[in-house]
Amino acid sequence: MAAELLRDFPAEVELIPLSDAPGPEIEIDVWIPDPYPTRAMRTWPKLRGVRLVLSLMAGTEWIPRTVGPHVTICNARGAHNISTAEWTLASILATLKHFPFFLEVQRSGQWKRRFEASAHYATISGDARPLYPPVMLEELTEKKVLLVGYGSIGKEIERMLAPFHVDLLRVARSARTEPKVHPVSELDSLLPKAQVVILILPATPESNKLIGARQLALMPQGALLVNAARGPIVDTDALVEALNAGRIRAALDVTDPEPLPEGHPLWSCPNLLITPHVGGSSPQFAPRALGIAADELRRYLAGEPLQNVVQAAV
Amino acid sequence: MAAELLRDFPAEVELIPLSDAPGPEIEIDVWIPDPYPTRAMRTWPKLRGVRLVLSLMAGTEWIPRTVGPHVTICNARGAHNISTAEWTLASILATLKHFPFFLEVQRSGQWKRRFEASAHYATISGDARPLYPPVMLEELTEKKVLLVGYGSIGKEIERMLAPFHVDLLRVARSARTEPKVHPVSELDSLLPKAQVVILILPATPESNKLIGARQLALMPQGALLVNAARGPIVDTDALVEALNAGRIRAALDVTDPEPLPEGHPLWSCPNLLITPHVGGSSPQFAPRALGIAADELRRYLAGEPLQNVVQAAV
Repeated sequence: MAAELLRDFPAEVELIPLSDAPGPEIEIDVWIPDPYPTRAMRTWPKLRGVRLVLSLMAGTEWIPRTVGPHVTICNARGAHNISTAEWTLASILATLKHFPFFLEVQRSGQWKRRFEASAHYATISGDARPLYPPVMLEELTEKKVLLVGYGSIGKEIERMLAPFHVDLLRVARSARTEPKVHPVSELDSLLPKAQVVILILPATPESNKLIGARQLALMPQGALLVNAARGPIVDTDALVEALNAGRIRAALDVTDPEPLPEGHPLWSCPNLLITPHVGGSSPQFAPRALGIAADELRRYLAGEPLQNVVQAAV
Repeated sequence: MAAELLRDFPAEVELIPLSDAPGPEIEIDVWIPDPYPTRAMRTWPKLRGVRLVLSLMAGTEWIPRTVGPHVTICNARGAHNISTAEWTLASILATLKHFPFFLEVQRSGQWKRRFEASAHYATISGDARPLYPPVMLEELTEKKVLLVGYGSIGKEIERMLAPFHVDLLRVARSARTEPKVHPVSELDSLLPKAQVVILILPATPESNKLIGARQLALMPQGALLVNAARGPIVDTDALVEALNAGRIRAALDVTDPEPLPEGHPLWSCPNLLITPHVGGSSPQFAPRALGIAADELRRYLAGEPLQNVVQAAV
């Protein structure tokens, strides 16, 4: 790791590099886990004395069940905001502008427009199922958008949607005002209004399969479901069925299971963009996340309240 | 055409549908040409008495040479603003997020991330040339963007770029202030600073091959050229060379020649997104463009100055 990335760490801290290879026990006070949970979980059994976990990620659902309740856990709230919000905008615009379709047409090396392109697509792809033969490109401007999750990334997405004057409906665990946020209990009544549904809420027992067959059926014909959150929030079997029926479109940066295994039916669904959990990826991620961790560590040493506690030690 | 689309036309006007099939001469005062120039140019020889052309498009470069100097020409300035600006944002974000690459990986039905995905791409595509093995997705936020052309669509693009806090440099035919717009004579000195170059200026003799080998060589390694304007503004041979050398990336909604013929070298260039001149396509286009034409027609009948004159009759 470049020394420059660690320059904001307090000078009195001793930094010990960790690996996930088997080895002797290591006594530390604060653990900054590898961003890949599988590697981090292999490292944990070697660690002794850990009182504080500073995750570099926003999603920390694997940490409490790994480290137990006697350790304080902070996340790097904010480090992924811009990159994840940009991925969300990119996936919505690319879908509405039918880029996956036009890239197929481009691969075929033939200039085909609109109606023509649609018939051509069936020929080159053998797939006559596309929900949206792109007779027209669509506009994001003035679309009805349902934002499910209104934490720091959700707010960043709202900020990037502003120039498009969308009709935005917000949903979160609990209702709020200014701006108006609907409680998740009202989700089913809001879904029929949404042309785009964006999932950007944490994975919790309550959000597990929040979007199931019933919710997908409530979305308008042709609506777009964007999952920038966590795979298990959507019932994958129900999603496969809705996509194959030509009912809706989807853009997924996360899936359940993840990684999506070879031969999984989701791979061959129409009207679907999958990226392999890269939405938060950014050259700016490491400096941002380590800057947040360094700041939290400074507070910890100074006995100040920590900023981004997701679990307080019991 | 749906009657609803014509409801804003002045009641005293007689609307005569035209076709491009051979037929008798038709006497009209005002011509609204087919949006497809090839069809419109086949229609023109039949027309007599035309004093005003109301184009439904923004680009009217074919019209003066077809109708000559004794006819006034108006364009539908504004009708394509939102759709074309959205296409521009979509193509930039899709490129920075490596969507063309990930769609290839998705086609292969295997979950591959970052480094892994990059090696995998070479295997599935047989193309080891990608300029950007997506080790990381990039951010648009705070990128340096050069906007070449500052008419109504350029301003709309600027508005949609606002949430990304880009470092925007503007270029137009003549220098302006507030905001600062550089004259096109300074283009070469600005290109080395730009990570994204957006072309959204009219096709004129002066803008023909404005972006040639010299200009492409001045762009930083890996910069993205976006042509949302007209194909002939870029020297295609030079662009093919720069792309194949892995020097830059491009997103083109327009090409020269257009349509791009089968077997043209541009089809097989790496790091390139081509859409077949669909950027202005939108379900909102027809109502917007016909609304503008109806308004211009009302002014014409009332003897008021026309709004969007691109050629005044001599």
